[in-house]
Amino acid sequence: MPQPAQPSSLGLRRIDLLHGLSSARLDAISRSCVWRTCIAGQRLVAREDADREVYFIVSGSVRVTTYSPNGRETSLEDLTQGMCFGELAALDGRKRSADVVALTPGLVASMPPAAFRDLLREEWIVNERVLLRLADLARGLVERVLEVSTLTVQQRLCMELLRLARAGSSAAGPARIEPIPRHTALAHRVSTYREQVTRELSSLTRAGVLSRDGAALVVCDIARLQHMAEGTGGSEPSVKSGA
Amino acid sequence: MPQPAQPSSLGLRRIDLLHGLSSARLDAISRSCVWRTCIAGQRLVAREDADREVYFIVSGSVRVTTYSPNGRETSLEDLTQGMCFGELAALDGRKRSADVVALTPGLVASMPPAAFRDLLREEWIVNERVLLRLADLARGLVERVLEVSTLTVQQRLCMELLRLARAGSSAAGPARIEPIPRHTALAHRVSTYREQVTRELSSLTRAGVLSRDGAALVVCDIARLQHMAEGTGGSEPSVKSGA
Repeated sequence: MPQPAQPSSLGLRRIDLLHGLSSARLDAISRSCVWRTCIAGQRLVAREDADREVYFIVSGSVRVTTYSPNGRETSLEDLTQGMCFGELAALDGRKRSADVVALTPGLVASMPPAAFRDLLREEWIVNERVLLRLADLARGLVERVLEVSTLTVQQRLCMELLRLARAGSSAAGPARIEPIPRHTALAHRVSTYREQVTRELSSLTRAGVLSRDGAALVVCDIARLQHMAEGTGGSEPSVKSGA
Repeated sequence: MPQPAQPSSLGLRRIDLLHGLSSARLDAISRSCVWRTCIAGQRLVAREDADREVYFIVSGSVRVTTYSPNGRETSLEDLTQGMCFGELAALDGRKRSADVVALTPGLVASMPPAAFRDLLREEWIVNERVLLRLADLARGLVERVLEVSTLTVQQRLCMELLRLARAGSSAAGPARIEPIPRHTALAHRVSTYREQVTRELSSLTRAGVLSRDGAALVVCDIARLQHMAEGTGGSEPSVKSGA
Protein backbone atom coordinates (compact mmCIF):
# COMPACT_ATOMS: atom_id res chain seq x y z
CA MET A 1 0.00 0.00 0.00
CA PRO A 2 1.17 3.55 -0.67
CA GLN A 3 2.37 5.42 2.40
CA PRO A 4 1.07 8.94 3.15
CA ALA A 5 3.75 11.63 2.86
CA GLN A 6 4.01 15.32 3.80
CA PRO A 7 2.89 17.95 1.27
CA SER A 8 5.87 19.78 -0.24
CA SER A 9 5.50 22.81 -2.51
CA LEU A 10 9.30 22.56 -2.88
CA GLY A 11 8.80 19.11 -4.46
CA LEU A 12 6.31 20.61 -6.93
CA ARG A 13 9.02 22.96 -8.23
CA ARG A 14 10.48 19.88 -9.94
CA ILE A 15 7.31 19.32 -11.99
CA ASP A 16 7.73 20.53 -15.60
CA LEU A 17 4.04 21.36 -15.95
CA LEU A 18 4.21 23.75 -12.98
CA HIS A 19 7.45 25.60 -13.79
CA GLY A 20 7.35 29.32 -13.13
CA LEU A 21 4.18 29.32 -10.99
CA SER A 22 4.16 31.58 -7.93
CA SER A 23 4.99 30.21 -4.47
CA ALA A 24 1.43 30.96 -3.37
CA ARG A 25 0.04 28.93 -6.28
CA LEU A 26 2.42 26.01 -5.61
CA ASP A 27 1.46 26.06 -1.92
CA ALA A 28 -2.21 25.87 -2.85
CA ILE A 29 -1.62 23.02 -5.34
CA SER A 30 0.49 21.21 -2.76
CA ARG A 31 -2.32 21.38 -0.19
CA SER A 32 -4.93 20.18 -2.73
CA CYS A 33 -2.86 17.05 -3.46
CA VAL A 34 -2.66 13.70 -1.73
CA TRP A 35 1.02 12.88 -1.14
CA ARG A 36 2.28 9.31 -1.10
CA THR A 37 5.51 7.39 -1.25
CA CYS A 38 5.49 4.26 -3.37
CA ILE A 39 7.69 1.20 -3.73
CA ALA A 40 9.01 -0.40 -6.93
CA GLY A 41 6.37 -2.59 -8.56
CA GLN A 42 3.43 -0.82 -6.93
CA ARG A 43 0.42 -0.13 -9.16
CA LEU A 44 -0.65 3.53 -8.90
CA VAL A 45 -3.43 3.52 -11.49
CA ALA A 46 -5.38 0.60 -12.96
CA ARG A 47 -6.85 0.46 -16.48
CA GLU A 48 -10.67 0.65 -16.46
CA ASP A 49 -10.78 2.11 -12.93
CA ALA A 50 -12.92 5.20 -12.35
CA ASP A 51 -10.54 7.38 -10.28
CA ARG A 52 -9.52 10.57 -12.08
CA GLU A 53 -6.67 12.31 -10.25
CA VAL A 54 -3.65 13.74 -12.04
CA TYR A 55 -0.33 12.48 -10.65
CA PHE A 56 2.88 14.52 -10.37
CA ILE A 57 6.06 12.41 -10.14
CA VAL A 58 8.13 14.26 -7.52
CA SER A 59 10.76 11.50 -7.45
CA GLY A 60 11.19 8.07 -9.02
CA SER A 61 9.91 6.69 -12.31
CA VAL A 62 6.85 4.81 -13.56
CA ARG A 63 5.78 2.71 -16.53
CA VAL A 64 2.49 3.28 -18.37
CA THR A 65 1.46 -0.18 -19.47
CA THR A 66 -1.48 -2.52 -20.10
CA TYR A 67 -2.34 -6.17 -19.72
CA SER A 68 -4.55 -7.99 -22.23
CA PRO A 69 -7.16 -10.52 -21.02
CA ASN A 70 -4.65 -13.32 -21.70
CA GLY A 71 -2.05 -11.53 -19.53
CA ARG A 72 0.10 -10.18 -22.36
CA GLU A 73 1.72 -6.85 -21.47
CA THR A 74 2.06 -3.92 -23.88
CA SER A 75 3.94 -1.00 -22.40
CA LEU A 76 3.31 2.50 -23.71
CA GLU A 77 5.88 4.81 -22.13
CA ASP A 78 8.16 5.32 -19.13
CA LEU A 79 7.90 8.60 -17.20
CA THR A 80 10.39 10.01 -14.70
CA GLN A 81 10.72 12.68 -12.03
CA GLY A 82 9.15 15.99 -13.09
CA MET A 83 6.52 14.43 -15.35
CA CYS A 84 2.78 13.77 -14.90
CA PHE A 85 0.28 11.06 -15.67
CA GLY A 86 -3.47 10.58 -15.45
CA GLU A 87 -4.40 13.70 -17.46
CA LEU A 88 -6.80 11.88 -19.79
CA ALA A 89 -9.25 10.76 -17.11
CA ALA A 90 -8.91 14.09 -15.27
CA LEU A 91 -9.91 15.92 -18.45
CA ASP A 92 -12.66 13.71 -19.87
CA GLY A 93 -13.95 11.88 -16.82
CA ARG A 94 -13.71 8.50 -18.56
CA LYS A 95 -12.09 5.37 -17.15
CA ARG A 96 -8.33 4.96 -16.95
CA SER A 97 -6.80 4.08 -20.32
CA ALA A 98 -3.83 2.16 -18.91
CA ASP A 99 -2.09 0.85 -15.81
CA VAL A 100 0.70 2.88 -14.22
CA VAL A 101 3.26 0.94 -12.19
CA ALA A 102 6.20 2.36 -10.19
CA LEU A 103 9.57 1.24 -11.58
CA THR A 104 11.49 2.59 -8.57
CA PRO A 105 10.68 3.80 -5.06
CA GLY A 106 9.29 7.31 -5.36
CA LEU A 107 7.10 10.15 -4.18
CA VAL A 108 3.92 11.17 -6.02
CA ALA A 109 1.34 13.90 -5.48
CA SER A 110 -2.15 13.36 -6.88
CA MET A 111 -4.46 16.30 -7.61
CA PRO A 112 -8.28 16.05 -7.80
CA PRO A 113 -9.61 16.40 -11.38
CA ALA A 114 -11.72 19.51 -10.67
CA ALA A 115 -8.74 21.30 -9.10
CA PHE A 116 -6.64 20.33 -12.13
CA ARG A 117 -9.20 21.72 -14.58
CA ASP A 118 -9.44 24.95 -12.53
CA LEU A 119 -5.65 25.23 -12.67
CA LEU A 120 -5.69 24.99 -16.48
CA ARG A 121 -8.24 27.75 -16.64
CA GLU A 122 -6.40 30.03 -14.22
CA GLU A 123 -2.83 29.46 -15.43
CA TRP A 124 -2.63 29.67 -19.22
CA ILE A 125 0.98 28.44 -19.26
CA VAL A 126 -0.09 25.17 -17.59
CA ASN A 127 -2.94 24.80 -20.09
CA GLU A 128 -0.50 25.31 -22.99
CA ARG A 129 1.87 22.69 -21.59
CA VAL A 130 -1.00 20.21 -21.26
CA LEU A 131 -1.99 20.85 -24.90
CA LEU A 132 1.60 20.18 -25.98
CA ARG A 133 1.85 17.10 -23.77
CA LEU A 134 -1.34 15.67 -25.31
CA ALA A 135 -0.11 16.47 -28.82
CA ASP A 136 3.18 14.74 -28.03
CA LEU A 137 1.35 11.74 -26.59
CA ALA A 138 -0.80 11.46 -29.73
CA ARG A 139 2.25 11.74 -32.01
CA GLY A 140 4.12 9.03 -30.07
CA LEU A 141 1.09 6.74 -30.31
CA VAL A 142 0.68 7.38 -34.06
CA GLU A 143 4.32 6.31 -34.54
CA ARG A 144 3.74 3.24 -32.40
CA VAL A 145 0.66 2.26 -34.44
CA LEU A 146 2.66 2.65 -37.66
CA GLU A 147 5.64 0.70 -36.35
CA VAL A 148 3.61 -2.23 -35.13
CA SER A 149 1.43 -2.18 -38.27
CA THR A 150 4.17 -2.00 -40.88
CA LEU A 151 7.58 -2.97 -39.45
CA THR A 152 9.07 -6.37 -38.64
CA VAL A 153 9.98 -7.23 -35.05
CA GLN A 154 13.67 -6.78 -35.95
CA GLN A 155 12.99 -3.28 -37.28
CA ARG A 156 10.92 -2.32 -34.23
CA LEU A 157 13.61 -3.56 -31.87
CA CYS A 158 16.27 -1.57 -33.78
CA MET A 159 14.03 1.53 -33.55
CA GLU A 160 13.68 1.07 -29.79
CA LEU A 161 17.45 0.57 -29.34
CA LEU A 162 18.05 3.77 -31.34
CA ARG A 163 15.65 5.68 -29.09
CA LEU A 164 17.31 4.32 -25.94
CA ALA A 165 20.80 5.04 -27.31
CA ARG A 166 19.84 8.63 -28.17
CA ALA A 167 18.17 9.20 -24.79
CA GLY A 168 21.22 7.90 -22.88
CA SER A 169 24.07 9.44 -24.89
CA SER A 170 25.54 12.87 -24.34
CA ALA A 171 29.28 12.62 -25.12
CA ALA A 172 30.95 11.54 -28.37
CA GLY A 173 31.96 7.90 -28.92
CA PRO A 174 29.80 4.79 -29.16
CA ALA A 175 26.27 5.17 -27.77
CA ARG A 176 25.65 3.33 -24.51
CA ILE A 177 22.38 1.99 -23.13
CA GLU A 178 22.71 1.70 -19.36
CA PRO A 179 21.50 -0.26 -17.50
CA ILE A 180 20.92 -3.00 -20.06
CA PRO A 181 17.14 -3.23 -20.51
CA ARG A 182 15.48 -6.51 -19.62
CA HIS A 183 14.44 -8.59 -22.62
CA THR A 184 10.90 -8.86 -21.25
CA ALA A 185 10.62 -5.06 -20.98
CA LEU A 186 11.87 -4.63 -24.56
CA ALA A 187 9.36 -7.25 -25.73
CA HIS A 188 6.47 -5.36 -24.10
CA ARG A 189 7.73 -2.15 -25.66
CA VAL A 190 7.96 -3.48 -29.24
CA SER A 191 4.89 -5.73 -29.05
CA THR A 192 6.50 -9.14 -29.28
CA TYR A 193 7.67 -12.05 -27.07
CA ARG A 194 10.79 -12.17 -24.90
CA GLU A 195 12.19 -15.14 -26.82
CA GLN A 196 12.19 -13.15 -30.05
CA VAL A 197 13.96 -10.19 -28.41
CA THR A 198 16.66 -12.55 -27.10
CA ARG A 199 17.08 -14.03 -30.58
CA GLU A 200 17.30 -10.64 -32.29
CA LEU A 201 19.75 -9.22 -29.73
CA SER A 202 22.02 -12.25 -30.18
CA SER A 203 21.88 -11.75 -33.91
CA LEU A 204 22.77 -8.04 -33.56
CA THR A 205 25.69 -8.93 -31.26
CA ARG A 206 27.01 -11.59 -33.68
CA ALA A 207 26.78 -9.03 -36.49
CA GLY A 208 28.96 -6.58 -34.49
CA VAL A 209 26.22 -3.96 -34.13
CA LEU A 210 25.94 -4.37 -30.35
CA SER A 211 28.34 -5.42 -27.61
CA ARG A 212 28.18 -5.69 -23.86
CA ASP A 213 30.40 -3.62 -21.56
CA GLY A 214 29.71 -4.43 -17.92
CA ALA A 215 26.24 -3.13 -17.10
CA ALA A 216 25.87 -1.28 -20.42
CA LEU A 217 24.82 -2.28 -23.90
CA VAL A 218 27.10 -0.52 -26.41
CA VAL A 219 25.87 0.35 -29.89
CA CYS A 220 29.10 -0.17 -31.88
CA ASP A 221 27.61 0.68 -35.26
CA ILE A 222 24.76 3.17 -34.99
CA ALA A 223 24.60 3.77 -38.77
CA ARG A 224 24.06 0.06 -39.35
CA LEU A 225 21.39 -0.05 -36.60
CA GLN A 226 19.65 2.87 -38.33
CA HIS A 227 19.76 1.05 -41.70
CA MET A 228 18.31 -2.06 -40.10
CA ALA A 229 15.52 -0.06 -38.44
CA GLU A 230 14.67 1.34 -41.87
CA GLY A 231 14.75 -2.14 -43.40
CA THR A 232 17.71 -1.30 -45.64
CA GLY A 233 20.31 -3.49 -43.88
CA GLY A 234 20.24 -7.21 -42.98
CA SER A 235 20.95 -8.70 -39.58
CA GLU A 236 23.94 -10.60 -40.93
CA PRO A 237 26.90 -9.00 -42.77
CA SER A 238 25.41 -8.51 -46.19
CA VAL A 239 26.88 -9.83 -49.44
CA LYS A 240 26.09 -7.75 -52.48
CA SER A 241 24.32 -9.64 -55.20
CA GLY A 242 26.03 -9.33 -58.58
CA ALA A 243 24.60 -6.98 -61.19
CA MET B 1 -5.78 21.29 -57.16
CA PRO B 2 -8.17 22.66 -54.52
CA GLN B 3 -10.47 25.41 -55.78
CA PRO B 4 -10.83 28.67 -53.81
CA ALA B 5 -14.27 29.17 -52.27
CA GLN B 6 -16.10 32.05 -50.59
CA PRO B 7 -15.74 32.54 -46.82
CA SER B 8 -18.93 31.55 -44.98
CA SER B 9 -19.46 32.14 -41.29
CA LEU B 10 -22.72 30.24 -41.79
CA GLY B 11 -20.64 27.20 -42.80
CA LEU B 12 -18.61 27.52 -39.58
CA ARG B 13 -21.80 27.10 -37.53
CA ARG B 14 -21.61 23.42 -38.50
CA ILE B 15 -18.21 22.99 -36.81
CA ASP B 16 -18.50 21.24 -33.42
CA LEU B 17 -15.45 23.02 -32.04
CA LEU B 18 -17.02 26.42 -32.70
CA HIS B 19 -20.57 25.79 -31.43
CA GLY B 20 -22.04 28.66 -29.48
CA LEU B 21 -19.52 31.33 -30.53
CA SER B 22 -20.89 34.79 -31.32
CA SER B 23 -21.63 35.85 -34.92
CA ALA B 24 -18.88 38.46 -34.67
CA ARG B 25 -16.37 35.81 -33.61
CA LEU B 26 -17.47 33.41 -36.39
CA ASP B 27 -17.19 36.24 -38.95
CA ALA B 28 -13.64 36.98 -37.80
CA ILE B 29 -12.67 33.28 -37.90
CA SER B 30 -14.25 32.96 -41.34
CA ARG B 31 -12.18 35.85 -42.68
CA SER B 32 -8.95 34.46 -41.17
CA CYS B 33 -9.46 31.14 -42.99
CA VAL B 34 -8.57 30.04 -46.48
CA TRP B 35 -11.66 28.44 -48.06
CA ARG B 36 -11.39 25.66 -50.62
CA THR B 37 -13.50 23.03 -52.25
CA CYS B 38 -11.91 19.64 -52.74
CA ILE B 39 -12.62 16.54 -54.82
CA ALA B 40 -12.67 12.90 -53.72
CA GLY B 41 -9.15 11.49 -53.50
CA GLN B 42 -7.47 14.87 -53.09
CA ARG B 43 -4.68 15.06 -50.52
CA LEU B 44 -5.21 18.01 -48.16
CA VAL B 45 -2.29 17.43 -45.79
CA ALA B 46 0.87 15.36 -46.31
CA ARG B 47 2.82 13.57 -43.55
CA GLU B 48 6.18 15.23 -42.83
CA ASP B 49 5.14 18.51 -44.48
CA ALA B 50 5.76 21.74 -42.54
CA ASP B 51 2.40 23.54 -43.04
CA ARG B 52 0.50 24.01 -39.79
CA GLU B 53 -3.07 25.19 -40.45
CA VAL B 54 -6.08 23.72 -38.67
CA TYR B 55 -8.80 22.51 -41.07
CA PHE B 56 -12.55 22.71 -40.45
CA ILE B 57 -14.61 20.23 -42.50
CA VAL B 58 -17.63 22.30 -43.56
CA SER B 59 -18.91 19.53 -45.83
CA GLY B 60 -17.69 16.14 -46.99
CA SER B 61 -15.47 13.59 -45.25
CA VAL B 62 -11.76 12.80 -45.06
CA ARG B 63 -9.49 9.93 -44.07
CA VAL B 64 -6.45 10.41 -41.80
CA THR B 65 -3.96 7.87 -43.08
CA THR B 66 -0.27 7.12 -43.66
CA TYR B 67 1.91 5.37 -46.19
CA SER B 68 5.03 3.46 -45.17
CA PRO B 69 8.21 3.67 -47.32
CA ASN B 70 7.16 0.43 -49.04
CA GLY B 71 3.75 1.93 -49.88
CA ARG B 72 1.72 0.10 -47.26
CA GLU B 73 -1.21 2.18 -46.00
CA THR B 74 -2.31 2.35 -42.35
CA SER B 75 -5.41 4.45 -41.83
CA LEU B 76 -6.03 6.09 -38.48
CA GLU B 77 -9.53 7.59 -38.57
CA ASP B 78 -12.26 8.96 -40.81
CA LEU B 79 -13.64 12.43 -40.06
CA THR B 80 -16.85 13.99 -41.38
CA GLN B 81 -18.63 17.32 -41.66
CA GLY B 82 -18.37 19.37 -38.47
CA MET B 83 -15.01 17.94 -37.40
CA CYS B 84 -11.45 19.30 -37.57
CA PHE B 85 -7.97 18.05 -38.36
CA GLY B 86 -4.43 19.40 -38.24
CA GLU B 87 -4.53 20.48 -34.57
CA LEU B 88 -1.26 18.72 -33.64
CA ALA B 89 0.98 20.74 -35.98
CA ALA B 90 -0.97 23.94 -35.22
CA LEU B 91 -0.29 23.45 -31.50
CA ASP B 92 3.30 22.20 -31.45
CA GLY B 93 4.72 23.53 -34.72
CA ARG B 94 6.12 20.11 -35.67
CA LYS B 95 5.68 18.38 -39.01
CA ARG B 96 2.42 16.73 -40.03
CA SER B 97 1.94 13.35 -38.35
CA ALA B 98 -0.21 11.85 -41.12
CA ASP B 99 -1.75 12.34 -44.56
CA VAL B 100 -5.32 13.58 -44.85
CA VAL B 101 -7.19 12.63 -48.02
CA ALA B 102 -10.73 13.67 -49.04
CA LEU B 103 -13.10 10.70 -49.29
CA THR B 104 -15.86 12.77 -50.95
CA PRO B 105 -16.16 16.18 -52.63
CA GLY B 106 -16.24 18.78 -49.88
CA LEU B 107 -15.60 22.26 -48.56
CA VAL B 108 -12.84 22.99 -46.02
CA ALA B 109 -11.69 26.14 -44.24
CA SER B 110 -8.09 26.25 -42.98
CA MET B 111 -7.08 28.59 -40.16
CA PRO B 112 -3.50 29.83 -39.57
CA PRO B 113 -1.87 28.26 -36.48
CA ALA B 114 -1.31 31.56 -34.65
CA ALA B 115 -4.97 32.55 -35.10
CA PHE B 116 -6.00 29.10 -33.83
CA ARG B 117 -3.86 29.42 -30.70
CA ASP B 118 -5.25 32.94 -30.08
CA LEU B 119 -8.76 31.51 -30.40
CA LEU B 120 -8.04 28.88 -27.71
CA ARG B 121 -6.79 31.59 -25.38
CA GLU B 122 -9.76 33.89 -25.99
CA GLU B 123 -12.55 31.31 -26.04
CA TRP B 124 -12.21 28.89 -23.13
CA ILE B 125 -14.98 26.64 -24.47
CA VAL B 126 -12.98 26.04 -27.66
CA ASN B 127 -9.86 25.31 -25.61
CA GLU B 128 -11.81 22.78 -23.52
CA ARG B 129 -13.12 21.06 -26.63
CA VAL B 130 -9.60 20.81 -28.05
CA LEU B 131 -8.38 19.25 -24.77
CA LEU B 132 -11.20 16.69 -24.98
CA ARG B 133 -10.53 16.04 -28.66
CA LEU B 134 -6.84 15.38 -27.95
CA ALA B 135 -7.71 13.12 -25.02
CA ASP B 136 -10.12 11.21 -27.27
CA LEU B 137 -7.49 10.93 -30.00
CA ALA B 138 -4.94 9.58 -27.52
CA ARG B 139 -7.45 7.05 -26.13
CA GLY B 140 -8.35 5.83 -29.63
CA LEU B 141 -4.66 5.40 -30.46
CA VAL B 142 -3.96 3.52 -27.21
CA GLU B 143 -6.75 1.07 -28.13
CA ARG B 144 -5.34 0.72 -31.63
CA VAL B 145 -1.84 -0.01 -30.26
CA LEU B 146 -3.30 -2.66 -27.95
CA GLU B 147 -5.42 -4.25 -30.66
CA VAL B 148 -2.60 -4.52 -33.16
CA SER B 149 -0.15 -5.67 -30.45
CA THR B 150 -2.28 -8.35 -28.84
CA LEU B 151 -5.19 -9.40 -31.08
CA THR B 152 -5.29 -11.66 -34.14
CA VAL B 153 -6.35 -10.24 -37.50
CA GLN B 154 -9.72 -12.01 -37.14
CA GLN B 155 -10.29 -10.35 -33.76
CA ARG B 156 -9.28 -6.92 -35.06
CA LEU B 157 -11.60 -7.25 -38.05
CA CYS B 158 -14.49 -8.29 -35.77
CA MET B 159 -13.75 -5.24 -33.56
CA GLU B 160 -13.83 -2.95 -36.58
CA LEU B 161 -17.12 -4.47 -37.84
CA LEU B 162 -18.63 -3.97 -34.37
CA ARG B 163 -17.58 -0.30 -34.41
CA LEU B 164 -19.03 0.21 -37.90
CA ALA B 165 -22.25 -1.61 -36.98
CA ARG B 166 -22.70 0.53 -33.85
CA ALA B 167 -21.96 3.75 -35.72
CA GLY B 168 -24.47 2.94 -38.47
CA SER B 169 -27.37 1.49 -36.45
CA SER B 170 -30.17 3.47 -34.91
CA ALA B 171 -33.32 1.31 -35.13
CA ALA B 172 -33.88 -2.14 -33.68
CA GLY B 173 -33.25 -5.25 -35.77
CA PRO B 174 -30.02 -6.58 -37.23
CA ALA B 175 -27.18 -4.03 -37.44
CA ARG B 176 -26.39 -2.84 -40.97
CA ILE B 177 -23.13 -1.49 -42.32
CA GLU B 178 -23.90 0.65 -45.35
CA PRO B 179 -22.32 1.09 -47.82
CA ILE B 180 -20.28 -2.11 -47.62
CA PRO B 181 -16.72 -1.04 -46.81
CA ARG B 182 -14.04 -1.90 -49.36
CA HIS B 183 -11.81 -4.79 -48.33
CA THR B 184 -8.72 -2.64 -48.94
CA ALA B 185 -10.02 0.10 -46.61
CA LEU B 186 -10.76 -2.47 -43.89
CA ALA B 187 -7.27 -3.90 -44.32
CA HIS B 188 -5.67 -0.46 -43.82
CA ARG B 189 -7.84 0.06 -40.77
CA VAL B 190 -6.94 -3.21 -39.03
CA SER B 191 -3.30 -3.31 -40.15
CA THR B 192 -3.36 -6.30 -42.48
CA TYR B 193 -3.61 -7.19 -46.19
CA ARG B 194 -6.71 -7.10 -48.38
CA GLU B 195 -6.49 -10.83 -49.12
CA GLN B 196 -6.77 -11.66 -45.45
CA VAL B 197 -9.81 -9.40 -45.00
CA THR B 198 -11.50 -11.13 -47.95
CA ARG B 199 -10.74 -14.54 -46.42
CA GLU B 200 -12.02 -13.56 -42.97
CA LEU B 201 -15.22 -11.95 -44.33
CA SER B 202 -15.99 -15.10 -46.34
CA SER B 203 -15.47 -17.17 -43.23
CA LEU B 204 -17.81 -14.90 -41.21
CA THR B 205 -20.44 -15.15 -43.96
CA ARG B 206 -20.20 -18.96 -44.12
CA ALA B 207 -20.56 -19.06 -40.32
CA GLY B 208 -23.82 -17.05 -40.54
CA VAL B 209 -22.48 -14.02 -38.67
CA LEU B 210 -22.66 -11.71 -41.70
CA SER B 211 -24.82 -11.56 -44.79
CA ARG B 212 -25.17 -9.22 -47.73
CA ASP B 213 -28.36 -7.28 -48.42
CA GLY B 214 -27.99 -5.15 -51.54
CA ALA B 215 -25.52 -2.38 -50.75
CA ALA B 216 -25.40 -3.22 -47.04
CA LEU B 217 -23.48 -5.71 -44.93
CA VAL B 218 -25.84 -7.13 -42.29
CA VAL B 219 -24.56 -8.36 -38.95
CA CYS B 220 -26.95 -11.28 -38.32
CA ASP B 221 -25.40 -12.35 -35.03
CA ILE B 222 -23.87 -9.43 -33.14
CA ALA B 223 -23.36 -11.44 -29.92
CA ARG B 224 -21.30 -13.97 -31.85
CA LEU B 225 -19.28 -11.18 -33.50
CA GLN B 226 -18.61 -9.76 -30.03
CA HIS B 227 -17.44 -13.16 -28.76
CA MET B 228 -15.15 -13.54 -31.74
CA ALA B 229 -13.69 -10.06 -31.21
CA GLU B 230 -12.94 -11.06 -27.62
CA GLY B 231 -11.37 -14.32 -28.78
CA THR B 232 -14.02 -16.43 -27.06
CA GLY B 233 -15.75 -17.73 -30.23
CA GLY B 234 -14.36 -19.49 -33.32
CA SER B 235 -14.92 -18.48 -36.94
CA GLU B 236 -16.65 -21.79 -37.70
CA PRO B 237 -19.70 -23.17 -35.87
CA SER B 238 -18.05 -24.50 -32.74
CA VAL B 239 -18.34 -28.07 -31.51
CA LYS B 240 -18.00 -28.48 -27.77
CA SER B 241 -15.21 -30.80 -26.79
CA GLY B 242 -16.39 -33.57 -24.47
CA ALA B 243 -15.78 -33.21 -20.76
